This record gives sequence, C-alpha cells and structure tokens, in this order.
Amino acid sequence: MPLDHTARGVYPIAPTPFHADGRIDFDSIDRMTDFYREVGSTGMTVLGVMGEAPKLDQAEALEIATRFIRRAGGLPVIVGVSAPGFAAMRGLARAAMDKGAAGVMIAPPNTLRTDDQIATYYRQAAEAVGEDVPFVIQDFPQTFSVVMTPAVIRRIVQESPSCVMLKHEDWPGLEKISTLRGFQADGSMRPISILCGNGGLFLDFEVERGADGAMTGYAFPDMLCDVVRLQAEGQRDAAHDLFDAHLPLLRYEQQQGPTGLAVRKYVMAKRGIIASDAQRKPGAALTAKARSEVEYLLARVARKDPRAGKLR
Amino acid sequence: MPLDHTARGVYPIAPTPFHADGRIDFDSIDRMTDFYREVGSTGMTVLGVMGEAPKLDQAEALEIATRFIRRAGGLPVIVGVSAPGFAAMRGLARAAMDKGAAGVMIAPPNTLRTDDQIATYYRQAAEAVGEDVPFVIQDFPQTFSVVMTPAVIRRIVQESPSCVMLKHEDWPGLEKISTLRGFQADGSMRPISILCGNGGLFLDFEVERGADGAMTGYAFPDMLCDVVRLQAEGQRDAAHDLFDAHLPLLRYEQQQGPTGLAVRKYVMAKRGIIASDAQRKPGAALTAKARSEVEYLLARVARKDPRAGKLR
Amino acid sequence: MPLDHTARGVYPIAPTPFHADGRIDFDSIDRMTDFYREVGSTGMTVLGVMGEAPKLDQAEALEIATRFIRRAGGLPVIVGVSAPGFAAMRGLARAAMDKGAAGVMIAPPNTLRTDDQIATYYRQAAEAVGEDVPFVIQDFPQTFSVVMTPAVIRRIVQESPSCVMLKHEDWPGLEKISTLRGFQADGSMRPISILCGNGGLFLDFEVERGADGAMTGYAFPDMLCDVVRLQAEGQRDAAHDLFDAHLPLLRYEQQQGPTGLAVRKYVMAKRGIIASDAQRKPGAALTAKARSEVEYLLARVARKDPRAGKLR
Amino acid sequence: MPLDHTARGVYPIAPTPFHADGRIDFDSIDRMTDFYREVGSTGMTVLGVMGEAPKLDQAEALEIATRFIRRAGGLPVIVGVSAPGFAAMRGLARAAMDKGAAGVMIAPPNTLRTDDQIATYYRQAAEAVGEDVPFVIQDFPQTFSVVMTPAVIRRIVQESPSCVMLKHEDWPGLEKISTLRGFQADGSMRPISILCGNGGLFLDFEVERGADGAMTGYAFPDMLCDVVRLQAEGQRDAAHDLFDAHLPLLRYEQQQGPTGLAVRKYVMAKRGIIASDAQRKPGAALTAKARSEVEYLLARVARKDPRAGKLR
Repeated sequence: MPLDHTARGVYPIAPTPFHADGRIDFDSIDRMTDFYREVGSTGMTVLGVMGEAPKLDQAEALEIATRFIRRAGGLPVIVGVSAPGFAAMRGLARAAMDKGAAGVMIAPPNTLRTDDQIATYYRQAAEAVGEDVPFVIQDFPQTFSVVMTPAVIRRIVQESPSCVMLKHEDWPGLEKISTLRGFQADGSMRPISILCGNGGLFLDFEVERGADGAMTGYAFPDMLCDVVRLQAEGQRDAAHDLFDAHLPLLRYEQQQGPTGLAVRKYVMAKRGIIASDAQRKPGAALTAKARSEVEYLLARVARKDPRAGKLR
Repeated sequence: MPLDHTARGVYPIAPTPFHADGRIDFDSIDRMTDFYREVGSTGMTVLGVMGEAPKLDQAEALEIATRFIRRAGGLPVIVGVSAPGFAAMRGLARAAMDKGAAGVMIAPPNTLRTDDQIATYYRQAAEAVGEDVPFVIQDFPQTFSVVMTPAVIRRIVQESPSCVMLKHEDWPGLEKISTLRGFQADGSMRPISILCGNGGLFLDFEVERGADGAMTGYAFPDMLCDVVRLQAEGQRDAAHDLFDAHLPLLRYEQQQGPTGLAVRKYVMAKRGIIASDAQRKPGAALTAKARSEVEYLLARVARKDPRAGKLR
Repeated sequence: MPLDHTARGVYPIAPTPFHADGRIDFDSIDRMTDFYREVGSTGMTVLGVMGEAPKLDQAEALEIATRFIRRAGGLPVIVGVSAPGFAAMRGLARAAMDKGAAGVMIAPPNTLRTDDQIATYYRQAAEAVGEDVPFVIQDFPQTFSVVMTPAVIRRIVQESPSCVMLKHEDWPGLEKISTLRGFQADGSMRPISILCGNGGLFLDFEVERGADGAMTGYAFPDMLCDVVRLQAEGQRDAAHDLFDAHLPLLRYEQQQGPTGLAVRKYVMAKRGIIASDAQRKPGAALTAKARSEVEYLLARVARKDPRAGKLR
Repeated sequence: MPLDHTARGVYPIAPTPFHADGRIDFDSIDRMTDFYREVGSTGMTVLGVMGEAPKLDQAEALEIATRFIRRAGGLPVIVGVSAPGFAAMRGLARAAMDKGAAGVMIAPPNTLRTDDQIATYYRQAAEAVGEDVPFVIQDFPQTFSVVMTPAVIRRIVQESPSCVMLKHEDWPGLEKISTLRGFQADGSMRPISILCGNGGLFLDFEVERGADGAMTGYAFPDMLCDVVRLQAEGQRDAAHDLFDAHLPLLRYEQQQGPTGLAVRKYVMAKRGIIASDAQRKPGAALTAKARSEVEYLLARVARKDPRAGKLR
C-alpha cells in the first residue's frame, strides 16, 4: 500500500544492525521488525541517517530494505534514498518500490541555500524517482544545514503531488507545525502527514500541535507508541507522565552523531531487539563511564516504566 | 578578585532586561543580581549570546556590565566581550575590568576552521585584551560552527596563562570533559575551571564527569545551584531527582535562538526576577499556545519543586 | 548629496591606511582621497571588508569616515556600517550621515539562510539606520555565505525605499545582472544603481550586462575608471584591451582575505598612494617570493599600460 | 602503471560527455581521450566534480572510467571515488583499479572541521580503498568547505604511504605550495606530486612555486600543456605570454558550478572534442548573451593563440 497523507502513529527509524566485523546482521533485522510491529508501530523507516545509510553500498542498501519490507508483512516501510545525485536516488527508489516499499524519504543536500534551490531540488527529485513514488521531506536543519520555512514546505507540497509526508525535525519547531496546520486550515496547502523526529525531544508537545506522530529511533519505540496513543485518546497528563519518565534517557540518547547511535544500539541490544551494538566503521562505542550512565538512567526510568527494567 | 581556575558553582548567564520599548531596564538588573546571589550563585556572566549582547552598542554594553558589577557586591562577574575585531574587544574588556569585572568571556568568530586558526585567534585575543585579564573560552559549536578538540583547548590553555576557564557547551560533550580532566591528571594541561552551558541539558552528568558547575541561564538558577551542591555532597540520586523534575521545562527552554530566550524571560518575569519579558529587536515573543505550554510545564514542575509554583 | 539610484562610475573600496605600529595613517587617507578624485572616481566607499573595518572600534571608524568625507570635498562617500547588531549599526550610520556621508553599505550576517530571513534583515536594518539614510546591499556570497536570489534583491528594493544601490559581487553573477535589469524593464522593480565588486574580475562584462560601474579596490582604480568610461563610450575592444592588460595582476590581487589586501596595499604604497602596506593585526604581509611575483606582473602590465611602470 | 609521486605535466579533469537526453556519450569519451593524448597530456582524471560524478549511479561511473582507461592506452587515469561512505568508495575504487586505473582521487566530505577529523578521514579512506591503491588528496576549500593546513596535508602524507599526490586548489594557495615543498626540503615530509586545479587561475605562478603541473579542465588543455612545458624549459616570459593570452577566457570559464561547466563544454563541443555541451540534469546551459561573450573571448584569444580560432 503506498504511503499517503493519512499516515499516523509511530514509524521508528530503524538502525541497521551489524555484526562486530561490519557485516549486516539480517537476523536482527527480522527480530527488530517483529518488535516494532508488536509494540504498535504503524510503519517503519529504514536507511535514514541513524540507519548508517551512507556507509552502505547500493546493493547492500537494497538488500537491507528488502529484508525489512518482507518481514514487515504489510506494515508500510519508508526507505531513505537520499543520495548525492538523482541517478543513484532513482535507482534505489525504484528498486525499493518494486520490492514493496510504501514510499521514500529524501533529505536535502547540505549545499542548498535559497528557497528556490530547495523547492527546485525537491521538484527534480520527485521527477527523478518517478511521480508515482510517494515521498517524505526530511526537514532537519541541525544536521543538514538547510533551512526550510513553512512557506517553502508548502511550495514543495503544492508543486509535487507525490509529496505526502513531512519528517519534521526543525528545532525549535513547534510553531512550524502550527503554521503548517494553519496552511491546511486556510486551504493554501493540501493535507500532509507530519511525523516528528529530532530524537523525540519535543514529541509530547508536537502531537498537541497537530503532528500525526513520531518518526524517530529512540530505543523505546513502545513508549513513543503509548505517548502518541494517549494523546490521541485525550489523556494528556498520562502522556506527559510517561514521556517525562523517559525524558532523562531520551535526552541522553539525543547526542549528535555516532555517540547517540551508540546509546541507542546499546539499549536495543540490551533489550534483545538486536544482537550487537556494533556500528560499521567509522562509528563509535560507549566508554565504560557512558555505559554506567546509561545503566543508571535505565534503572531510574524503570521506577516509572517497568519496560526499562527488563528485556522485552 | 580576578577569576581563576578554582571557580566553581553556578554562574548564571544573565539576560539583559529591557523595557517594552527597547530601553535597558536597570532596575531589573539590580533585582536579578540580588536574586542570583540569594539563591546561591557563586558568580554571574553578563553580555553573553543570551544576554542579547550583539544588539547593544559599546556604551550600553559597558553601562550594563557596570551596573551588574556594582550590584553584585563582590560576587565575581564575567563579561562577554566577543566582537568582530580586537579593537572593540579590547575596549570593552579593559573598561569592564576597570569597573571591577572578574574576567571576560571570548567566543570564536564563526569563520575559524583549522586547529591553528582557533589557537592563533585565542592567542591574539589574549594579547589584545591584555594578559592580565583572566578569560574564559566559550566552546559552543552548535551556535558558532567552530569545533575545538580537547587538544586544541589544551593548546590554548598552555599558550595563554590568562586562560582560566572553559565554558563547555559542546554537544555531545561528556567525553570531552573526561578527556580534559585526563589531561590535567597526566600533567599535560594545567588545571582550569569548567562550567557548563548548553542550557543545562546535560548538567546532571557533566558535574559527575568533573565539571565544576554550570554557566547557563535556565530560569531556575536556584535548581542549578541545588543540583551542583547535591552532587558535591555526594547526593547523586537527590541531584538527579531534582534535575529530572525540571528537565521537561529546561528542555522546553532549550530552543535555539530567540524562542528559547522568550521562554526564559517569560518565566523570569513571571517569577518577578525581571519586570518584562521584552527582547530588544529583532526578538521573539511567545505565542499564546507556547505560553500555555510553559504554564502547563510550570504546574507539572511545581508538583515536585514548589519553587515553580509561586513567585520567588 | 545623498546617494541615489543614478550613481555610476567607480567608487573605489578604500583600504584603511595604517602605520607599521597599527595607528591610523590619516595623511595617507588624504593622499588616497585626492588620488581617487584625480583619476576620475565618481565616489568612494570606506570601512568595507577590505578596509579592515572589523579591526576598528566605533570611535576610530567614525574618525576615519569623517576624514575621508572631509577630504572628498563633495565626492559622495559610502560608509560601511555592517555590525553584529542594529544598535552599533545605527550609531555609526547616523554619525557618518551627520558628517556628510552620502549613504551606507550593509552586509548580511553570515547566519542568514532563508529568503525571508534575508528580506527581514534588510527591512529591520533600514528601519534601524533610519529610512532617510540611503543604503547599499552588499551581495557577496563567497565571503558572507548568504545567497540572495534576484527575487530576494527585488523584494528588498521594493520593501525599502531607502535602498538605492546593489554592490554586486556574486560569482557567477553575469546572469544576475541581466535578470535584475530585466526586472526593471518589466516594471517589477524600481531602478537601482549596480556597482560591481568581487575584485573587478568580471568587470569587463558586468558593465556590458548593465552594471553602472565598479565598487572595488584594485590598486589601479584609474584603470577601472577608464574601462567603465570606454565601455560607456562604446569602445568595447579598447575597454577589453585595457582590462586584459591588467587582468594578470588584478587576478593576482584577487586572493581571498589578507593576502589579497597585502598585494593591494603593496602596490598602492609603491605607487605612492599610501605610505605603508601595513595591515592592522591580525594581518598578512607579502613574502619575498610574492613581492617578486607582483613586481614581475607590474613590469608586464607596464608594457601595455605605462601607469603600472611608474609612480603616480 | 600505478600512480606515484613522480607524476607531472597535465592531467586534464575530463568532463563526462552526455547526449542531449542525458545518456552517456561514449564516442565522445573516445574522442576526448585521443585529444588529451595528442596535445601532450601526461595523464587524465575522470569522475571529478566537473565530471558530474554525483549524477551517475555506481554502474555508470565504472563504465565511464573503464571506457576512458581502455582508450587511454596506458596513459595513467585517475578516478574520482569520493562518496558519502566508505563502502561505495571502496567498491568503485577496487573495480576501477581492476580495470587499470592508475590511482584514485578522494575529496573530503564537507562536514569535516578539525585537523584530527580530516587526518582520520583520510586514514580511514586509505584503509577502505586498500593500501595498495595510490590516492590523491583533493584540497578544494572553496567548494568543499574543508580547510587543510600544510601541516595536516603533511600528516596525511606521513600517515598514509599510499598517498602520492595533492590536487592543490586552495585559494589563495601559492604560499601553501612553497610551504609543502619546504617540508620536503627539510625532510619532514616525503615527496609528493602536486598538480593544480582551481580552474588554472594561478597556474602560471603555481609551477614557479614548485607544483608539478595542472589538473584542471580548462577547454584548452593544449595551452595548459604548453605553459607547463615552457616553464619546465625555463621560458618564463613565453609561458606567461601564452597564459595571459588565455586568461580572459580561462577566467570566464572559472565560474562556480554548472555555469563554468557550461562554458567549458560549449568550447569543447565547438572545438569538436565532444559532440554536445549537454549536462545531465540538474545542469545549466549558456544563455544567448553568454554564448556571444564566449565567442567574443575566443576571437580575442585567437589573435594570440591560433588554436582558439579553429576546430582542432
């Protein structure tokens, strides 16, 4: 089923599991996929920045995406296809769609500056992957150095019918969500799905501002699912209570680059979701001190959310 | 008393209070200074990024610094003197020292790239302000786009005897603190004071890693003081409990640029520490929605820390 | 006489002459001003990037601008007032206008990214300096990292009646000039003066595209004046012949940062226009090898333009 | 024959010829390769920035490299293998070496900042492609935003025995060449080949500073070969005369991004070296006005270098 603007819930950003020697760990892909489904994810996103996508070659990327898609059993899978050029982007996008992907995610190259450059890039990218391929804009200025105003996002949406979703990870970004939903309300932009990244750091309020859910890789996607569900049910305080219980750890995981990923993979391995916290080179591993900090945080989270205290 | 490497505790980053029409609100400077002292601050820092320093002209900057210094009654005041060039930097630094400042803080211009450029800049800056003026390195790559390795910081420290403190706000930065303290332990770097910024987002662990305290502007400096004190007393869990109680709000305040400052000033005005949350132009004000989010967070913090529920 | 959109010809970017010890050399300001006038300049621009403006404090900046203005005897002087904030910008702008400046030049801070940020910045700057102060947009992405599309420039022009000139130094930029003149032709933008910087590297064609002249600091402003005049007279080949004779040296001077300025000041000192090629710290001086290269180039230029072979 | 530090002369940066519909034009690859050899090139470089490498997928890249290598008949071919990650880089590098490439060229990702990051990146890249693969450092800060000091280049050379060449295109860069040759003279760095890019804008002096020749794509590689040869023969004035005759056009071609490439391909197509000046999307084409400017420049160059006035 192709992705469309009604998507909601939680699409975890799946890490790519590796063996210690850098080979892809396909068994862990299966286990992780099952886990995501069991905890209530409504989809998943693979080959993102935190999926170590740039470290893969084209064949590996497709193989990984295919494995996730097969195991997902119909749960929509979004495939990151960001690439330095359109030929490589198109190649992966079409192959992934052939394998059953629900859509693709496209990040802007970090050389884009002006509004026109950004809008033009997305128009060309949409054309390159094919206008039958639903795509997600990734708006992550902290990492990509590309700043998109709400008006530019609207322009992309209006110019590209195949744009169906925004991965929102601008920071600060709460007013941006409100502005975009305002554009829909005043009729100047057709509806899109907005899922939030940025490590989940503002998820509690983002859904209150009108976001449809989360697209991030925090090691407790189960918590993300519950927070989004609780908010949807109108249980605001309960949602915040659960979110706040995890915030110290979530914040700790939210360290830029390989450190944050090391925390995430460490916790996921500890939970038994993946076999190893190995990153492909160049990567990072937690120091003993950092591991003890994570353990301390896990123990503290477990006082309020028992899931943090035991294996899945 | 000139600043030296034994400085510890909390040096709040003081906002500059303005009237609604953009004039400086000197009465609020006095009130804020008193407040900082009453809650246990061991110093304070004025004319930083969050002090809207670039919006002031040279005369105003000196006038503000002087007012803080006078009211501080001996509490050490660090004055931000970052400037596009050394003539302006020297002018403010020497004038502020004449008025009784304890030291100055210097941020790198965002055009610096190589290790040599960074080290050279600080050597020239130290010479420009005068080697009798103790100075603080501000290491804030997210805002300044200048990346300093621990080895570069060591080089600055070793090359400039007047460098006595690091304002640490790299992110991620925990290992950096450990590495710098390791340099001291192995004798390759003389001791410096490390106070942490970055909105306080990792303060709980930063002090465990060896930082001497905080230099940030969170609207509850009283909490920062208590966390640093509790950690110094070995009350780790109590420190984390208090920190975690504030983390949802602290995180909310930690929005880049004028939005974060708007949250901070709003809460400080509500607490009666300053008269108005006005920013000098160009600034930002909170939307009604954002204000209601802050109020919600304050109410939640107040369940665990009564200070959040009432005026000072 | 206030600057307006009819300005044309050559406004040299004046370096700030220093003594070897860093003091301002006011006598050389006088000599240089006289020289600019004698060779046919129609104005001049002081306190630009190549005028080492960031190395001056506010009082020095005003003193220098005032000296140029007085000596210029009515020739319009544009004063660079770029600053980290509007208070300092306003201070210098109003003081310089009081002393008789014709207008001010404003560069964008290198943190601006989106079209809206750029347009907003100029609207606020125009308001800050006062809408009675004619101003020049400096469009120099190579140095400032701010990319302005023609549409953004048009927007600034249309939103700010006091914007009268563009210092054009985008690269590549020939089509930009054509596009802007097209905006005037189709009535969507009111006329502005366009003077070209970027070291003069494309001046030969820029004036053919519709630019009104040059605003750059090449050590032979007399050549710039002649090229602009020849082009205005329709003597295209003669203009190119003269330009091409200087191009090897002009290109050599066009090295980013202090090296290029060292070449420029060396030649100007050699020509007797200023007393010394000293730059205020941090600066650069030519190596012996570089000096010999400049001498070689001067000798070669002199075969076609005798001015290069002798003092003024 | 693998590339080593004795390489000298001219290695043109070959554009990738396309048909108007974006397909690769293999016949033009053959013709261009023959041309390069006939005019005295000592090697060639394919799949660089100006070879539109990012627009190709992996299979195309290898196919193009292979075609050049076969046709080159023993002339060393350097293959650009810059990629977002090491898996893709290794894949192309090993495959190209298997096909007979002489070495590979590696540009730094534009996110590198510190000296350590740069040195580490090259050490990892050297390991990734295999230490039997000779490689070229591409030092092009204007495009990549990565600033390498001479000391960092030395560090890469000393840490990676397979590093044999520097593509020098820092700007300004003359002193850098002198410094690097000084490192060799004082024994602190083993010898490397230095070929210069940056469009050739300073080639005349670069070879005098100790560079071994050119690696750039100016549409008259015959001129580049002659200038390098004349300098090697000690005919300094003749070298400069020839260089200066081309400088107005060379400078015009030296426009950043697709515009410069459009000029280059236009002239190469006009000379019959390639069939079409088409760029793969997203690209640029010359406007009528720009074409007339190029024609004017060609006519002027032809007065001094007859090659500019006729087909090859």
